[in-house]
Amino acid sequence: MERELVEWLRSRLPPASTEVALGPGDDAAVLAPSGDRGLVVTTDMLMDGVDFRLDELDPRRAGRKSLAVNLSDLAAMAAQPTAAFVSLALPRSGAAGLDALELAKRLYEGLLPLADEFGVVIAGGDTNTWDGPLVVSVTAVGKTTARGPLLRSGARPGDALVVTGSFGGSILGKHLDFTPRVREALLLHELYGVHAAMDVSDGLSLDLSRLCAESGCGAFVRSWEIPVDDAADRLAETKPGGGDAISHALGDGEDFELLLAMPFDDAERAVKDRAIGDVPLTIVGGFVAEHGLWDVDPKGQRKPLAPRGYLHGADS
Amino acid sequence: MERELVEWLRSRLPPASTEVALGPGDDAAVLAPSGDRGLVVTTDMLMDGVDFRLDELDPRRAGRKSLAVNLSDLAAMAAQPTAAFVSLALPRSGAAGLDALELAKRLYEGLLPLADEFGVVIAGGDTNTWDGPLVVSVTAVGKTTARGPLLRSGARPGDALVVTGSFGGSILGKHLDFTPRVREALLLHELYGVHAAMDVSDGLSLDLSRLCAESGCGAFVRSWEIPVDDAADRLAETKPGGGDAISHALGDGEDFELLLAMPFDDAERAVKDRAIGDVPLTIVGGFVAEHGLWDVDPKGQRKPLAPRGYLHGADS
Repeated sequence: MERELVEWLRSRLPPASTEVALGPGDDAAVLAPSGDRGLVVTTDMLMDGVDFRLDELDPRRAGRKSLAVNLSDLAAMAAQPTAAFVSLALPRSGAAGLDALELAKRLYEGLLPLADEFGVVIAGGDTNTWDGPLVVSVTAVGKTTARGPLLRSGARPGDALVVTGSFGGSILGKHLDFTPRVREALLLHELYGVHAAMDVSDGLSLDLSRLCAESGCGAFVRSWEIPVDDAADRLAETKPGGGDAISHALGDGEDFELLLAMPFDDAERAVKDRAIGDVPLTIVGGFVAEHGLWDVDPKGQRKPLAPRGYLHGADS
Repeated sequence: MERELVEWLRSRLPPASTEVALGPGDDAAVLAPSGDRGLVVTTDMLMDGVDFRLDELDPRRAGRKSLAVNLSDLAAMAAQPTAAFVSLALPRSGAAGLDALELAKRLYEGLLPLADEFGVVIAGGDTNTWDGPLVVSVTAVGKTTARGPLLRSGARPGDALVVTGSFGGSILGKHLDFTPRVREALLLHELYGVHAAMDVSDGLSLDLSRLCAESGCGAFVRSWEIPVDDAADRLAETKPGGGDAISHALGDGEDFELLLAMPFDDAERAVKDRAIGDVPLTIVGGFVAEHGLWDVDPKGQRKPLAPRGYLHGADS
């Protein structure tokens, strides 16, 4: 089946790009020399029943998500995506009413438009069938810009904590259909000072605590200024025991928005400029020398903020 | 668990390499700029029950194989390995008598020595637990040499068909414990003319037919000159219905040896020079303009040779 799928894919892929000298079909792909630019590489593995449920959704959305989560990681580094590699373990007997080959094509039909949108060439992969559930593993490659990559470790006391988009309730759909903030990261990195960045995959407060740990500092959040997604409101209403909307915004995973550490002046200018167009850009707090996380209320009172979010692995 | 494993891994990884500017721990890895060298990228996904059986082997061998198959692909391109990314879907309740974390460590204990041996830095990955069996997905990155990559498409009529090592019966152990022919490929590519290369993962005759298809030519094999692995002999003896040793050499998968197309003079010189030391290097046939595969007997009689080997996917 692998060869049939490769033929099908080859017919759908754009002709050779300047970034991919040799695509699928040989023992490996060859990417163009990167000159003096660093190459950014990230990989994520998604599994049926964990990251999506094939019995509940169109497989195109699962395929799209598999690439999108990787592009979100590239965005967090302010890297320009160039290529991706897609490996599949397909259930031998198919899934979602499709045989294995049709399932694979459906996954790609969700993935390829996103790849096109972000200039990503599918340069290779590995297709398998087995007796287990669907696994999709994507590796994405990008190039740093002349300004270099954005790391988690660059936040400094005094920086503003800035976020893109809105938070909470992504389980209602955004965790599948989000737009990775690649363009936003590149724009901000090019036009403003940005000291650190990270994408929110496990939860705003948990990921913020990680960014602080890597930067060796602490942070405060004015949680009442966090842009709360409508989905978080809906979730709070329909699941009364699960916390209010702000709790969802602080602790739900898979927002795939950016956390940014920016000098306050740059942050205020970027917000005023509407630097990333219709995508909200909001200053929600700041970084401090003291280690820890705090929530600051409108009166300036601070209380400790416990990092919450999705921890990988049953025993973590 | 992911963070615990990353900490454990960080303590075992060599300090930053010149090829990896930023390793595990951020949103993505940053590889050093490649200057004017092409970057070669390959990825393989291995699954419990398909590529190895955790109930029958030490997980270290599964971990080692997961990297080795990727290095074999880099060898087939004559690329110098630099970095690898390792993604795991670990069974939540563990396997082989180990819990998920211990299983992950055992996999790495098999993988890391091979990485060291070939100068590969583990630059990132993704660790997950789920209710399915173990899946290991590795992406390996290498650099082409000044001579560029070796492709499947470069074989020309008149070239010798040269193979490294010996063939057949890998299921008895070599499929787990083989040495990827990275050093051999780099040596041959540097010192001799090599027009095309491919590693044998699915079977000598099947993979040869693919190399021919990409090169737009045919090939003949003197099957009696193919170095037959002892394991192929043992398999032929213990499984009387499964064909003779040469059939195993021609059709068994996972030899992970190299097929090379070399000008005859270069091939003869490389054999005479013992160019790759103790690893056998053997001229077993040649490439011809006419499409197809033939087996030529010691008297020069030729008969068609049907490509045989492992086809991926149940429906292929």
